[in-house]
Amino acid sequence: MPIQAYAAKTPKGRLEPFSFEPGPLGPREVEVKVTHCGICHSDQAMIDNDWHFAAYPLVPGHEVVGTVAAMGAEVRGLALGQRVGVGWQCGSCGECEFCRVGRETFCAQERDTIVHHHGGFAERVRADANFAIPLPTGLDSAQAAPLLCAGTTVFTPMLHHGVTANTRAAVVGIGGLGHLAVQFLAKLGCEVTAISGTHDKDEEARGFGAASCIATRGTDELKKAANRFDFILSTAPGDLPWADYLAALRPAGQLVIVGVPPSDLQFSAFLLIAQEKSFCGGRTGSPAEIATMFNFAARLGVRAQIEKFAMKDINTAMDRVRTGKMRYRVVLEA
Amino acid sequence: MPIQAYAAKTPKGRLEPFSFEPGPLGPREVEVKVTHCGICHSDQAMIDNDWHFAAYPLVPGHEVVGTVAAMGAEVRGLALGQRVGVGWQCGSCGECEFCRVGRETFCAQERDTIVHHHGGFAERVRADANFAIPLPTGLDSAQAAPLLCAGTTVFTPMLHHGVTANTRAAVVGIGGLGHLAVQFLAKLGCEVTAISGTHDKDEEARGFGAASCIATRGTDELKKAANRFDFILSTAPGDLPWADYLAALRPAGQLVIVGVPPSDLQFSAFLLIAQEKSFCGGRTGSPAEIATMFNFAARLGVRAQIEKFAMKDINTAMDRVRTGKMRYRVVLEA
Repeated sequence: MPIQAYAAKTPKGRLEPFSFEPGPLGPREVEVKVTHCGICHSDQAMIDNDWHFAAYPLVPGHEVVGTVAAMGAEVRGLALGQRVGVGWQCGSCGECEFCRVGRETFCAQERDTIVHHHGGFAERVRADANFAIPLPTGLDSAQAAPLLCAGTTVFTPMLHHGVTANTRAAVVGIGGLGHLAVQFLAKLGCEVTAISGTHDKDEEARGFGAASCIATRGTDELKKAANRFDFILSTAPGDLPWADYLAALRPAGQLVIVGVPPSDLQFSAFLLIAQEKSFCGGRTGSPAEIATMFNFAARLGVRAQIEKFAMKDINTAMDRVRTGKMRYRVVLEA
Repeated sequence: MPIQAYAAKTPKGRLEPFSFEPGPLGPREVEVKVTHCGICHSDQAMIDNDWHFAAYPLVPGHEVVGTVAAMGAEVRGLALGQRVGVGWQCGSCGECEFCRVGRETFCAQERDTIVHHHGGFAERVRADANFAIPLPTGLDSAQAAPLLCAGTTVFTPMLHHGVTANTRAAVVGIGGLGHLAVQFLAKLGCEVTAISGTHDKDEEARGFGAASCIATRGTDELKKAANRFDFILSTAPGDLPWADYLAALRPAGQLVIVGVPPSDLQFSAFLLIAQEKSFCGGRTGSPAEIATMFNFAARLGVRAQIEKFAMKDINTAMDRVRTGKMRYRVVLEA
């Protein structure tokens, strides 16, 4: 049965109704009936072909929540009608050294939901069964949708860098990713500093759990924060003053970026060497890591703050994302 | 009693006999009679004032091995005549959060042996007692001298980054630091690749424990090594093709630099983000870490390969270092 979806047919194009025939369901695949789908900046980047690997017609959407509508013959551990989430990655080889240890994001045969595959701005979406991750009952479907990309992108570096309650942490950029990062860190027990261009979002940042706030635009607050943080997570996709952020790290501190800046990173090696600092990249988690995040978010009350739009109003919703003014994440409802 | 030493009296100056009165010995200080002192590239950099914090007359030398000649009243755990080593750092506050946990290199009041303090190109040198680190009996004094800076600079990152026998490791630059790094990694049980400009040193690198060798100059061997190493330690103080080295890392791999390149680091953020890689700085270890290294080197047979010169031939020895052709480290003997 054809799937009704919304697709960009050319780079930077508006989203238009698009129907496609998904073909036979693979033995280890599931088909998910989409109830909610978040809109991520990388949907916009893919529509615009910013990263030069988009294929058109392109059906965006990789923060999918829905229910299992069909299962391949070999699928185990899921049930028809069960609520699941599908994120950036929708498949892997299942057999390599990385897949065998639950690090599927590193699989050389990684398949992504909106790269040469049709995503969640649609009635239904396909994924390998182990990339359809069950949602715990405590999570609202609409609020859970942004966890599938924004959430796991900020939570996974906390896991991989061993963040604990004793980690002095900062989050750069209080937007879709950042407002979740502040919550995760606060619930981990950290003293969290929210770093934003202005102080406009301070009250909301404190509501998410920030203990203090720094504004960078036209102030010296960042320079004054020298030697203050063990872990800085940058969610801002801009060309930041990297030297100031490295200086803001304490000895052996880690600056982890998950936002992609347009230009090369550039900074003095002394900033790393003198106090054994690290400049690191972070990305979305594996299915097991997403499941860990779901459980954490459900238990400890991490909730995306969202603006909802009906799926049919998708272009209005995309325009809202393009303004960058949504607080803090846009979610489409079927 | 005045100390007879060799000092550079101006930036880039030759070393000349220099006598100075060290003043009263502090209650927690020791005075070490120098028997051996390695020459490090950072002695040369300090003589030349490359880093803009040298003070003249400058007595270089921070790979000191000697015997305890005098002890302050409060010194415990050392004996007159005992063999000790003094490295880059000669003091710290002893009371801050870092000193309390054996991470004295991060102390804000760190004092360094050749920075506003007279080093080991001398009859005697002073240090806080806990920076005079006892040598195990198995280590030859001349061979041990280069461990005090070259050795600890490469060994400490292996400790801090959790290198084990299962770490696929590479060393960039097979010189004073690199020939020790290859030995340490091989003795840790790693499969080690030696990366050098040419294949001229391959046989010696294999002798130090390298399993394979890569030459970078005019070859594509580095590009072919994409996705191969978990841990790359760069000892080369040059502007390297950072993108190629980051590409040579496996997922979640770490590129650690201990050599200071003349220019800023510059590379695409995608190289970090796509596979969670890290670009890190490393430096010398704390007294406890140097003691761990001494024990490791003595037990497992890590030995600096050295060229010896008499202390009085210090300018000949410095010239040898300036050529970069010594294999692999120059050590002065009293």
